[in-house]
Amino acid sequence: MAARCLHLAALLSFFSGALPFPLGPEAGKSPTCGYESCHATQPDMLNVHLVPHTHDDVGWLKTVDQYFYGDRNDIQHAGVQYILDSVVDQLLKNPDRRFIYVETAFFYRWWRQQSSSMKQTVKQLVEEGRLEFVNGGWCMSDEATTHYSSVIDQMTLGLRFLNETFGLCGRPRVAWHIDPFGHAREHASMFAQMGYDGFFFGRLDYQDRSQRMATKDQELLWRASESLTPPMADLFTGILPNGYNPPDGFCWDQSCDDPPIRDDPELEDYNVDDVVNRFVAIAKSQSMVYKTNHIIMTMGSDFQYENANLWYKNLDKLIRYVNAEQAGGGKVNVLYSTPSCYLQELHRANSTWALKTDDFFPYADAAHDFWTGYFTSRPALKRYERISNSNLQTCNQLEVLGGPDSRKGPFGEGDSQTLKEAMAVAQHHDAVSGTEKQHVANDYARRLADGWQRCQVLVSNSLAALSGSTAERIYCDNLNISVCPLTEASKKFSVNVYNPLARPVSHPVRLPVNGSSYEVTDANGKPVDCQVLPVSSSTKEDPHLQDPLLQDPHSIQNKFLRVTFDPDTGLLSGLSNLETKQSVKLSQNFYWYNASDGNDALSIQPSGAYIFRPNSSTPFTISRSAKTESIQGVVVQEVRQVFSPWASQVVRLYAGRRELELEWTLGPVPIGDALGKEVITRFDTGIRTSEYFYTDSNGREMLRRRKDFRPSWTLRQSEPIAGNYYPINSRAFIKDEEDQLTVVTDRSQGGGSIHNGSLEIMLHRRLLYDDVRGVVEPLNETSDIFPEGLVQVVLQPLLSFTEGELHPDTRLEFSGLQAALPPAVHLLTLTQWDEDSLLLRLEHQFQKGESKVNSEPVTVNLQKMFSTLKLLGVSEMNLSANQWKDEMKRFDWTPQTGEKPLLKEFPQRSVWEVTLRPMEIRTFLLRVR
Amino acid sequence: MAARCLHLAALLSFFSGALPFPLGPEAGKSPTCGYESCHATQPDMLNVHLVPHTHDDVGWLKTVDQYFYGDRNDIQHAGVQYILDSVVDQLLKNPDRRFIYVETAFFYRWWRQQSSSMKQTVKQLVEEGRLEFVNGGWCMSDEATTHYSSVIDQMTLGLRFLNETFGLCGRPRVAWHIDPFGHAREHASMFAQMGYDGFFFGRLDYQDRSQRMATKDQELLWRASESLTPPMADLFTGILPNGYNPPDGFCWDQSCDDPPIRDDPELEDYNVDDVVNRFVAIAKSQSMVYKTNHIIMTMGSDFQYENANLWYKNLDKLIRYVNAEQAGGGKVNVLYSTPSCYLQELHRANSTWALKTDDFFPYADAAHDFWTGYFTSRPALKRYERISNSNLQTCNQLEVLGGPDSRKGPFGEGDSQTLKEAMAVAQHHDAVSGTEKQHVANDYARRLADGWQRCQVLVSNSLAALSGSTAERIYCDNLNISVCPLTEASKKFSVNVYNPLARPVSHPVRLPVNGSSYEVTDANGKPVDCQVLPVSSSTKEDPHLQDPLLQDPHSIQNKFLRVTFDPDTGLLSGLSNLETKQSVKLSQNFYWYNASDGNDALSIQPSGAYIFRPNSSTPFTISRSAKTESIQGVVVQEVRQVFSPWASQVVRLYAGRRELELEWTLGPVPIGDALGKEVITRFDTGIRTSEYFYTDSNGREMLRRRKDFRPSWTLRQSEPIAGNYYPINSRAFIKDEEDQLTVVTDRSQGGGSIHNGSLEIMLHRRLLYDDVRGVVEPLNETSDIFPEGLVQVVLQPLLSFTEGELHPDTRLEFSGLQAALPPAVHLLTLTQWDEDSLLLRLEHQFQKGESKVNSEPVTVNLQKMFSTLKLLGVSEMNLSANQWKDEMKRFDWTPQTGEKPLLKEFPQRSVWEVTLRPMEIRTFLLRVR
Repeated sequence: MAARCLHLAALLSFFSGALPFPLGPEAGKSPTCGYESCHATQPDMLNVHLVPHTHDDVGWLKTVDQYFYGDRNDIQHAGVQYILDSVVDQLLKNPDRRFIYVETAFFYRWWRQQSSSMKQTVKQLVEEGRLEFVNGGWCMSDEATTHYSSVIDQMTLGLRFLNETFGLCGRPRVAWHIDPFGHAREHASMFAQMGYDGFFFGRLDYQDRSQRMATKDQELLWRASESLTPPMADLFTGILPNGYNPPDGFCWDQSCDDPPIRDDPELEDYNVDDVVNRFVAIAKSQSMVYKTNHIIMTMGSDFQYENANLWYKNLDKLIRYVNAEQAGGGKVNVLYSTPSCYLQELHRANSTWALKTDDFFPYADAAHDFWTGYFTSRPALKRYERISNSNLQTCNQLEVLGGPDSRKGPFGEGDSQTLKEAMAVAQHHDAVSGTEKQHVANDYARRLADGWQRCQVLVSNSLAALSGSTAERIYCDNLNISVCPLTEASKKFSVNVYNPLARPVSHPVRLPVNGSSYEVTDANGKPVDCQVLPVSSSTKEDPHLQDPLLQDPHSIQNKFLRVTFDPDTGLLSGLSNLETKQSVKLSQNFYWYNASDGNDALSIQPSGAYIFRPNSSTPFTISRSAKTESIQGVVVQEVRQVFSPWASQVVRLYAGRRELELEWTLGPVPIGDALGKEVITRFDTGIRTSEYFYTDSNGREMLRRRKDFRPSWTLRQSEPIAGNYYPINSRAFIKDEEDQLTVVTDRSQGGGSIHNGSLEIMLHRRLLYDDVRGVVEPLNETSDIFPEGLVQVVLQPLLSFTEGELHPDTRLEFSGLQAALPPAVHLLTLTQWDEDSLLLRLEHQFQKGESKVNSEPVTVNLQKMFSTLKLLGVSEMNLSANQWKDEMKRFDWTPQTGEKPLLKEFPQRSVWEVTLRPMEIRTFLLRVR
Repeated sequence: MAARCLHLAALLSFFSGALPFPLGPEAGKSPTCGYESCHATQPDMLNVHLVPHTHDDVGWLKTVDQYFYGDRNDIQHAGVQYILDSVVDQLLKNPDRRFIYVETAFFYRWWRQQSSSMKQTVKQLVEEGRLEFVNGGWCMSDEATTHYSSVIDQMTLGLRFLNETFGLCGRPRVAWHIDPFGHAREHASMFAQMGYDGFFFGRLDYQDRSQRMATKDQELLWRASESLTPPMADLFTGILPNGYNPPDGFCWDQSCDDPPIRDDPELEDYNVDDVVNRFVAIAKSQSMVYKTNHIIMTMGSDFQYENANLWYKNLDKLIRYVNAEQAGGGKVNVLYSTPSCYLQELHRANSTWALKTDDFFPYADAAHDFWTGYFTSRPALKRYERISNSNLQTCNQLEVLGGPDSRKGPFGEGDSQTLKEAMAVAQHHDAVSGTEKQHVANDYARRLADGWQRCQVLVSNSLAALSGSTAERIYCDNLNISVCPLTEASKKFSVNVYNPLARPVSHPVRLPVNGSSYEVTDANGKPVDCQVLPVSSSTKEDPHLQDPLLQDPHSIQNKFLRVTFDPDTGLLSGLSNLETKQSVKLSQNFYWYNASDGNDALSIQPSGAYIFRPNSSTPFTISRSAKTESIQGVVVQEVRQVFSPWASQVVRLYAGRRELELEWTLGPVPIGDALGKEVITRFDTGIRTSEYFYTDSNGREMLRRRKDFRPSWTLRQSEPIAGNYYPINSRAFIKDEEDQLTVVTDRSQGGGSIHNGSLEIMLHRRLLYDDVRGVVEPLNETSDIFPEGLVQVVLQPLLSFTEGELHPDTRLEFSGLQAALPPAVHLLTLTQWDEDSLLLRLEHQFQKGESKVNSEPVTVNLQKMFSTLKLLGVSEMNLSANQWKDEMKRFDWTPQTGEKPLLKEFPQRSVWEVTLRPMEIRTFLLRVR
């Protein structure tokens, strides 16, 4: 009954040589694809760009592979293999036809099953611009609950496949997020840095849309970073007219019932005149709310085009018959088009566009229908996705450091690709978002677990190579619930700690053990502080552990922080920063909103996987007081609070750390009272927030939020709680001129500041009704959820264990880096690219003005970075690594402010000297030996 | 207030010349299609013939054109244009693939919209046997409610299109009636005479199937005529294993949810082994109930293959993976096949087959689910279809007789093609059968009406040419409800009577008039007997007409018949044949069965459009007595019986006729009591029937029926009424050694003999529940229905009217025939074939042994037949006119009786001398001037 602690750090470094080298897209080949392949338009007419497309969720009601094969059509009729078969066939029938494809996770599955002649055919279609990829990531990522690190990875994975398969013509020009439920500024920033010329989406707040329609501002320029110099993060953004559906009456998919064009006068119900008249009326009406004489219509929807003939046969006719009216003076010109062809026409219009600097959260599609529930839905999956990213980065790094032996070594064959793909799939907007069916959530988790299994082999191989020991390594994936059979049973074992960060960290290692005292030493044989403490009752039912260490729970403190508790209630009551001598009144408790069941006078909308809708603005308190116990020792002090049989918390303060750790345990949330519950924790402070609070965007730049307010449009607030919730991916804070309270989360969650000085975070949800957005399942998760500690939550050290004594020849320490990187620099990506090259991303992790010390440009010499790698060459790439940086040429757009976009500046220094400005990420392909 | 009567006869005749001439299929071209294009099989394995097919109803839940275009997919997802598009595409992808197409009504619509290059492509597929036509009529006709005349016409229409479009390779070898609800012997006889080598169907009584499975007699030889010399009417008949569906778990259409073959080991749920094992198990199990080492599986169903890729992609894999087992000793061989390729293998097996001489009525798919309701469903449509055939034959004949002027003449452009196609569509097994939705029934009726409008123009033109008068001709299509504005208003008018039969008839003409006395003269100015009588109250509410002519209603008689009525009840009580001095006790009344509502202990099956299921075997009497009045005059005597406000009858005896006419009027059937009603009339006689009665098959040969008995299998009777109902297309009789009572009907109906001496006929049905066979609509017809008189019900004279005095130059009489044909010979078809040729069918209309005088061979000289046509040549054809008679070579099959099939004998006499044996129909193409 004691925990053994270790405290180690790992460093990574490299070294290198020569000059940039050609890789990736074929240079010199003149493409006929892209903008040059667009159909001609009519300058004096209204041009209607018909964009045939399919929206293929990478998992939602069915798993990604069920969708691919068309399995389980009883759940939803959808089979992507057939969509691609059919579209290719139909494109071949008429060279005017166009199609766009989006989700590389599916395209890749399909491609590998095709014959070489079919591959050649498809290549030709791509080269002629008849089949065009847009977006092109592995999936269409969620924007509210994803971390930028994983978004960049999944985009890279998809775009790399397109690049390697199709060369220049496979590079998407347009980002295309037609379905995600709100839009993050950081996504726009990333898309800009990935070289996209524009971005289109379908969903935004209904009030926002209506105001933009009135002012013709549905097309705008999004300036997506406060730190990056414009136009680095400027992204032209278009809001599509019908979500991503066709206009009413013009859906000709097999899944639709709209009347086909019946143009044989010898058969019944000839309807060409009717169709033409309806279409022209819709086009003219749509043109009234857009700026130019070009409009776009998305002709497709979810999993459409499985039988593309239906669509194309009728679209061919539509184009023919509408354009035939031109002979009689008709002023509408219809054409097959793509988003990039449409974008090109907008660019040619040489207009100015509204400038936007905030984001598109939260999303509401009606007065009581705020899509702010999914910020928290499926918190266990959200955490598992986040820890899997940490594991993947570790796996990637160790694949590089261990060399080829890591993939095939003493522990068998391992790979990082499986986890890369699993993580990429998990970024989908119905994956980590929590808006999928339960069996699909299980499938995502299984994929991550499979990926991790493959990585474990790789990691074991790599560590064997690096340490010289082939002793078996054990991984304890359930440490968060204090389960690790080896450490619980063994009398002597060693712990290997791999730190994927590029600087030393101090990391408390908590292990479940059964002994009462342990001797812990580091790699040099020196003793390491450690402390044995009982497992908390909420983590493990083990009553005999409860007695020995109870102490006075009224306060805990280390040299940085002092934390006080109310002696009457046991609740947190104050927090003092002992360095700055600041103190804040701080009370914290747990509450639940009673989820609306859809049965009230205002609206029939219930809370569900997507929607958050409390039926009252006042949450219920789980308990007004907590049963507490506290444990104090040399390494850690804990106050353990029990609020109810299903809600408890450990307040934890480590020696030498500036953060207070709050480890809550929730669940199963009881529903015996037939009430759906949305559980929050709320911090009430004396900070004078004046209705403001701050949240991160995809784990990077912070955005300021204001209660009942939107920066770029006039809000009529209709949901006082749900309408004030925002996504929190990694942190949120409240502040005034003196004090700031920051909460760092270990996964994506939703939260808000409903009252001044208050910050609440939604932790868990258990709901009894479906929220009528398609998933047809209540979000009724029965599992417990646990946090994993709030320290180093994004990339955390990987622990592995070896039973017994290590062989004396075992190398006990290794660093891949020659030295720690500067504090502002984050090693975002280090991964094997191909046999002779690596992909490296370095990130400046401070915002402009965020830190007096660290918000300055910082330079790193790549040659001096790695300890074991010889760098032969380096080439900078765009953020998604599918284009040479010096070949990036994006459309320039003029904001309505009249301000001309600043020219890009990419100062050329030594090829090895890399300067990073605040919030900048730079991406390099390194040739190595 | 009087009716004016006319009594005229028309004769038709021709004359002719030279020798047979080549027409139709291209001679001399060696086909690679047909049997030669079949895939090889494995003699020592179980060969599984996969037959990809679609079953496309020519109207059912949607109209034929809605089905073609894929309109109204909200009712049912089905679009035939896309099916054909898709199948052709997919056939081109793999030369092994096969497809069969059946319904020429749809194929024709599709074909005329194709480009010439697509037509060429399809021709090649047909010539290589990859696309094969089976059945090939305009539709797949109903077998219970159709008349042979219209069936032959619709088959001719479809097969002619195939013949002219594809030549020899377009000739179907197999008849394919996979869906009709029971099978008529006359259909089998016709198919044999049309040259089909075999016949496959899907539906038969469940007990019959189960007995045939046990004895492996699901494939059999059907001897379909008692009169025609075998094998003239012998037809090999195969019963398909799964109706017309694929085996469970192997439906890969977009409309199905069966798991696709997931053969990518890198994706989830690899299932190749599972699929192969399941398939082999099903194949082996199926082979246990068939005779040879070949079995057939129908891979398709209703409107399937709209996206043929789904089917073929998975079938390709199935074939590959199952046959791959052969390398390891597997003994199952799967192949793409067609019904004719399967038939060829059965023929090669050189086996003997059970001989069947009765038919497959009634059809039950479970103990309480007898499909005997549709024999009567929609009686108004059934009558309209029948009268439309009469009109079409008249139109065809007058097109021939009037020459080109009939198609374009003083009354504009007319044609017979519209009505030909409307009639062909109406033969579909969800058309005249009455099993379609109401809106579709309306569409069939509209098509017939449109067709008749086009024919009226043609007839007017033709009569103008033949009579020399262009005076406007008026048609009164509502004479059956005593409506004809011209005759009701005019003081002087002339009536033209065209008799489409090839012999004189005496036909009473009944017209609504407003005068009280009329003078009627014939073409020679001689007076014609006539009688003015009041319109019956049930036909027209006009009370002042009721008083003057009431008489004693106890009996009416003419020189042939005496009919007596019960003075207490007013019901019919006796019938005497005054020539033979026979008398029978005969009472007749009207009853209704209370339709089952599906809510009883035995079964949940309600009565509906298909199913007849009374909830008691005892019908309710509408009224135990009738209010009667009678009218007696020189031309006609009537007893008018009123049973209820919605049920009445006129019993009518014309001077000089041997038949008694019963004209009932029913409806709207009341449902205020919430009880569905199936209305019958029943004749109870003293005839000692010993459980037997007789019904016609499609209006031709008679079949003997016996209560609670089936001639070829052991029946467990579970529905004492519905299980004893049979289709009556034109007549039914009961008899003993002395007496026979024959009822001739004016449309198809169902009927039975439940008690000895009794014959009942179902007249009308109004039901409140759907019977769960797909139509999803109760058969709730609200209209009245009327019979049209029972005299000359199949081909009746066409009346047209001219107002006022005729021009003195008008030719008042014309006959197309030089002389009446012999009494045994019926002029079945006389129609223009192309500019220089006619199609002629002559029929011997007596069965072997039916008549001492008329059941003998009879010879007609074609040269002496027509009065105005010069015959230049004659060629005999098969019954469907798509093959020269002397090129007919059908497979020979040996029945289990061991009896060798007799050789066909077609004695060659003079080309102009045509001998007809009992029940023989001979078809000639005549070249004319």
